[in-house]
Amino acid sequence: MIFYPDSEKIEKILNRGEIFEEKYLNSVIEIIQKVKKEGDRALIKLTKKFDNYDLEKKFYFERSELKTFYEKIPENLKVAFNRAKDNIEFFHQAQLEKTFLVESNGAVLGQKITPLEKVGIYVPGGKASYPSTVLMNAVPAKVAGVDKVYMMSPTSGGEINELVLGVAYLAGVDRVYLVGGAQAIAAFAYGTESVEKVDKIVGPGNIYVALAKKMVFGTVDIDMIAGPSEILILADDSADPTFVAADMLSQAEHDELASAITITDNEDLAKEIEQELISQLFKLERRSIAEKSLKEFGGILLVKNLEEGIDFVNKIAPEHFELCVRNPFEYLYKIKNAGAIFMGHYTPEAVGDYFAGPNHTLPTGGSARFFSPLGTYDFIKRSSIIQCSLGYLTKFGKNIMDMADSEGLTAHRDSVKYRMLNGFKTDI
Amino acid sequence: MIFYPDSEKIEKILNRGEIFEEKYLNSVIEIIQKVKKEGDRALIKLTKKFDNYDLEKKFYFERSELKTFYEKIPENLKVAFNRAKDNIEFFHQAQLEKTFLVESNGAVLGQKITPLEKVGIYVPGGKASYPSTVLMNAVPAKVAGVDKVYMMSPTSGGEINELVLGVAYLAGVDRVYLVGGAQAIAAFAYGTESVEKVDKIVGPGNIYVALAKKMVFGTVDIDMIAGPSEILILADDSADPTFVAADMLSQAEHDELASAITITDNEDLAKEIEQELISQLFKLERRSIAEKSLKEFGGILLVKNLEEGIDFVNKIAPEHFELCVRNPFEYLYKIKNAGAIFMGHYTPEAVGDYFAGPNHTLPTGGSARFFSPLGTYDFIKRSSIIQCSLGYLTKFGKNIMDMADSEGLTAHRDSVKYRMLNGFKTDI
Repeated sequence: MIFYPDSEKIEKILNRGEIFEEKYLNSVIEIIQKVKKEGDRALIKLTKKFDNYDLEKKFYFERSELKTFYEKIPENLKVAFNRAKDNIEFFHQAQLEKTFLVESNGAVLGQKITPLEKVGIYVPGGKASYPSTVLMNAVPAKVAGVDKVYMMSPTSGGEINELVLGVAYLAGVDRVYLVGGAQAIAAFAYGTESVEKVDKIVGPGNIYVALAKKMVFGTVDIDMIAGPSEILILADDSADPTFVAADMLSQAEHDELASAITITDNEDLAKEIEQELISQLFKLERRSIAEKSLKEFGGILLVKNLEEGIDFVNKIAPEHFELCVRNPFEYLYKIKNAGAIFMGHYTPEAVGDYFAGPNHTLPTGGSARFFSPLGTYDFIKRSSIIQCSLGYLTKFGKNIMDMADSEGLTAHRDSVKYRMLNGFKTDI
Repeated sequence: MIFYPDSEKIEKILNRGEIFEEKYLNSVIEIIQKVKKEGDRALIKLTKKFDNYDLEKKFYFERSELKTFYEKIPENLKVAFNRAKDNIEFFHQAQLEKTFLVESNGAVLGQKITPLEKVGIYVPGGKASYPSTVLMNAVPAKVAGVDKVYMMSPTSGGEINELVLGVAYLAGVDRVYLVGGAQAIAAFAYGTESVEKVDKIVGPGNIYVALAKKMVFGTVDIDMIAGPSEILILADDSADPTFVAADMLSQAEHDELASAITITDNEDLAKEIEQELISQLFKLERRSIAEKSLKEFGGILLVKNLEEGIDFVNKIAPEHFELCVRNPFEYLYKIKNAGAIFMGHYTPEAVGDYFAGPNHTLPTGGSARFFSPLGTYDFIKRSSIIQCSLGYLTKFGKNIMDMADSEGLTAHRDSVKYRMLNGFKTDI
């Protein structure tokens, strides 16, 4: 599983999740138009067709109904999810931005922060239906001050993930609709008789969900487009091969398109990690998935030195990045592109996936070059504030009028001119 | 031009810029695929076809070439644009976020801020080719620390807007390509022989540009999708009808889809504004555009009281919002949805369009419900930081393992378990 910088594997990893999937586009557009036109009726028909579930039996759970699912959660999990929720709240509170005012040449300038009013969260059904997804999407919205948090999650052949519903209660979700796919996204974007139109849609989903989000972008806001997941580990001679291999497998078990790579300059360590991978794989429940992922998109990249390794990190722009080195803070500012950075030998990715506080919704597939983790900044909007005085216009009005004139926008110019003249009690 | 709360005009204004335009989608996808496949050759062919311009004559201007255009700018405009640039820099510096670390139950958590590396700015050609667009897009990118800022702007029938090129120099733009339309967006997203692939594309454009941005979203980041522009003014009896009418016209002159509305509870003022509009329209250079805009999407909405007016403001979620009232700060926190808020009688929209400092790229068509002005936050990305200790895992490892188990992800669980066991020097 060891490979070298000249391998084609890097390109293969970077190109494994091409998002531009036109072949699904027409059916997604058709579904969106149908929901926009027919509302609930379309949701009922499409849910029968795709999920084999009858929405007329049960369309959604109100918050009061979710509570009964919360109460059924086993005690040890209740403690765990409550602690995780507290940690997520604590970190996201630290992210909150404040309204500010500053003074510039006599003008008052500022930026006002206002929470979004209504947010829709998509949570996949079936095997990828995770309670941690609910926490990581709903809690930051509530911390930001969002008034209504709605959730859509399809039943899996009529089956409902009760833990997901219980955690939805804990996370503060107001209502859960049993709808999935592109139709769920369309309902959030345009509203139906039963679904309130939201301001922003967040959460992971399959290719139909991803394309639908892209198509309704602008009508509502969306979070990033999620692709296949990855972990990249930079390890020096101080790294523990058992830990490193375990962390690679914790990513590889997700799905066959997942990528798990360790970069090191130490050949002995590389060989030990390889041995560990083989022995840990053997005991793994999701062995066949992890094995395929490792073979196609994983491995140990042996580099000349860690500087060369860091160039690869920034090129790959991993979703999860572990600094399994002696002095992780020495490397922190060399890392330009990474969704989350896990420092040192006692910070496995799983701590961030579930518990520590920062969000587990992270940019995938190299998009950490430009996307950020989900955060409270996703659930607020900003408004600029400007207040000028007659004195300001007297001083700078000529500049503004010259600029307006240079663009041929004379009404813009005149709006300043009338004030300068009227301000001096002169007729125009 | 006076209308009342029960008028259908409000709905008409909200629906005037429906973004979901499938009819152009196929040709946009075709152009994107062509550029992705053929690179420069596609850009040359498409530019010949759409702009009737031969890129082989001159493909782009380097920064050193832009300087000669800057030097040709008339002195009064040079002063105005330099002052505007300083103000834009000042305000956007106030927006900058900082990397932070916090401690939580013994774990170190944080958020690292890193500027994007390469950004592409689109500036329309022809009549809507504005030097202020260049300043408002490039300066925040440079303040955020972006290394390379590239610009695309089509020639208008071989004609080049020299002021736009000169201001591009002032704003710090590194290179200007004479390419427009969907092909410019595709080149930024995928790169060609002459165009470097960027991390984010910003800037306004026509429907082809807007759709192309939407289609490449995910491959790169984009800013919001810009629609037709609007101004909304809330005026009490202290408002000056001359100023109010002038500000309405400064929006209406932009294009026929623009919307300019004043809301007031004062019937005398409403009538005076109406009179002013008629008399100012008469003198206006872009009279026919402004007249059509006012007729279709503009007017004076007479309400019972200003509270009712504020409900309309939040419903319309205007791009530009003027508080032409005696005590504007009294109303500030009642305004939930607005791109920019102009306070009092001496802050015409034009001050913000050109000069004061906050960005003039603002959410349009009601999208101030969820979008923000362009800002330095558009040109950075965040990475989460997590550092745990063995003590942290000892204390909370059980919780994390329980959560992983509840999701059936045993390799996630084991990555914690190996550390807890190895930490105690015990074999697994």
